[in-house]
Amino acid sequence: MRPDIKIILWGLGAMGSGIARLLLKKKGVRIVAAFDRDPTKAGKDLGELLGLENYGAKVGFPPTDGGNWPEQAKVMLLATSSFTQEVVGEINAGVGQGLNIITIAEEMSYPWAQAPELALEIDKRAKAQGVSVLGTGINPGFVLDTLILALTGPCQEVRRIKATRVNDLSPFGPTVMHTQGVGTTVAEFEQGLASGEIVGHVGFQESIHMIARALGWEIERIEEKRRPIVSKVRRETEHVKVEPGQVAGCHHTASGYVAGEARIELVHPQQILPQLEGVVTGDYIEIEGVPEIKLAIKPEIPGGLGTIAMAVNMIPQVIAARPGLLSMAEVAVPAAVLGDLKRISAWRTGEGLRMSD
Amino acid sequence: MRPDIKIILWGLGAMGSGIARLLLKKKGVRIVAAFDRDPTKAGKDLGELLGLENYGAKVGFPPTDGGNWPEQAKVMLLATSSFTQEVVGEINAGVGQGLNIITIAEEMSYPWAQAPELALEIDKRAKAQGVSVLGTGINPGFVLDTLILALTGPCQEVRRIKATRVNDLSPFGPTVMHTQGVGTTVAEFEQGLASGEIVGHVGFQESIHMIARALGWEIERIEEKRRPIVSKVRRETEHVKVEPGQVAGCHHTASGYVAGEARIELVHPQQILPQLEGVVTGDYIEIEGVPEIKLAIKPEIPGGLGTIAMAVNMIPQVIAARPGLLSMAEVAVPAAVLGDLKRISAWRTGEGLRMSD
Repeated sequence: MRPDIKIILWGLGAMGSGIARLLLKKKGVRIVAAFDRDPTKAGKDLGELLGLENYGAKVGFPPTDGGNWPEQAKVMLLATSSFTQEVVGEINAGVGQGLNIITIAEEMSYPWAQAPELALEIDKRAKAQGVSVLGTGINPGFVLDTLILALTGPCQEVRRIKATRVNDLSPFGPTVMHTQGVGTTVAEFEQGLASGEIVGHVGFQESIHMIARALGWEIERIEEKRRPIVSKVRRETEHVKVEPGQVAGCHHTASGYVAGEARIELVHPQQILPQLEGVVTGDYIEIEGVPEIKLAIKPEIPGGLGTIAMAVNMIPQVIAARPGLLSMAEVAVPAAVLGDLKRISAWRTGEGLRMSD
Repeated sequence: MRPDIKIILWGLGAMGSGIARLLLKKKGVRIVAAFDRDPTKAGKDLGELLGLENYGAKVGFPPTDGGNWPEQAKVMLLATSSFTQEVVGEINAGVGQGLNIITIAEEMSYPWAQAPELALEIDKRAKAQGVSVLGTGINPGFVLDTLILALTGPCQEVRRIKATRVNDLSPFGPTVMHTQGVGTTVAEFEQGLASGEIVGHVGFQESIHMIARALGWEIERIEEKRRPIVSKVRRETEHVKVEPGQVAGCHHTASGYVAGEARIELVHPQQILPQLEGVVTGDYIEIEGVPEIKLAIKPEIPGGLGTIAMAVNMIPQVIAARPGLLSMAEVAVPAAVLGDLKRISAWRTGEGLRMSD
């Protein structure tokens, strides 16, 4: 019998804890270590920390903070930060241990876009160790890049791509409210944009460059625009209150120019409770080409839940992928892991010759 | 500078000719040979045969019929038949020449479903030669399998999948009219089903097994049902006339059972001019799980055009894939080839380290 696939988790915030909970439900995997810098978490049993029964794996400080690597593992799931600069040390440490790595850091979905030198270094180290490194998530990582690419598969020509993700930020906490400017006045919103405290969506650069690279388009420049979504009505969640005239979220767009034309247009208005003003949430993709393709997913695929699922579900694809730093455009199509994960991984690596294997 | 990727075409019917025409528009590829058994085609220049200018590559008899292989090529595109049994000799011949192979034979989209021994043999030969073999197309190959799988990527749980492809057969010729029973009486339709002349859709077994294999579900049995779509109005295309009360097409469904439940339900009513009775064509996918996902593509992605595009657009993915017999679930996500195909292939194989490479 094949042994269970041994997993290391690094980062046990909201996303990392969600990944841990989902992994505990899957067959054919075993979490052998979990790292977090928070001293209130270190030393506890992972199951206990998650409010479940004792699991038999202790949470420890990360190896970069004096913690220890477990003896053997196959894959590390990393959920600590959004930015390549902040996770590159953790990735290189894991690669040095011979681990395949999946991270949900948004910039790592296509690090060649904003950190090409770091991408080059990670790629070189991963190839030397024979392991694969992948950034994934719901967006960037799926809705506004991987799913768009998949839809161009049946196209003979593509002239222009337009995609819109209209979502509801209500489930998110104070950090997201702050970076999206929810609950500010219009003046505060403009100030926040100028100071860099309000950022809108992180991932447009990555999604546009990933799409263009796979299609063979040369991006000349990317124009991003952010404007406040001013609420006409009162909106309130557990974490924030928005009065009429205040800001309910950030309308963020990005246009990728190819041969002087905006050929990739991504639109992502993010706000709390859009339905209070009759806005229907959803993911929408239009491919102008031969053929024309118009896709709608209503309501939108939920963000946090989807990112957690993508991180876990891509494990077999990353184990089977060629060594190096990879993007979602270069690994096998995503698929939910519903059966034994080690059996699915064996099939993907070419060991499962018959359907019964 | 990298050399253009050399391609062999085998089969120049409606689909094969479409593949040839599309390839002639792409950069970074060169068709070095084209094979067809039709003596009226053999000996002609490929461009001339397609009604274009002289291309400089002759159409010849297939090597299995006394024709010759060109000296060197990288990929063979095969468009001769729908059935594994009928293409296995052609595939093995190409694999023996060290060629990566893409075929649009429907059963080859997942040959483990209906021809497991042949699949095993092709896989063994492909691995020995270090080449990859892939079956693709719009359906099977994309709408009712690859696209479904992609949508399960952001799912933590999946209880049931239901997908419907409502299309218009009007562009197709006499062969498709015949195999779908278009223009028959209800009695003739039932007779045609019994005799095996009317088959409905070819690909349900393949799509269901591909989905299940990737998710890790065990299929116990597949139930297929075919019934006539009886027209209430007069319908007419270039190739067929349907009077009220006659059959306009075949409503074909398949249910894949897992643990006693129909967990994969695929519905594919195929008919001419459905809009005459107010039927809106489209591709629809519903994932019941966590989260629920409802996708609609209206109108449906066109069949013939999409199959031709998939065959050409998967070339870089197949060149970069691991050796062996592969399905769409195991290769990188589809993407249109809009720029230089040899540059896209180099990037996919891990040679393009920087975005400018």
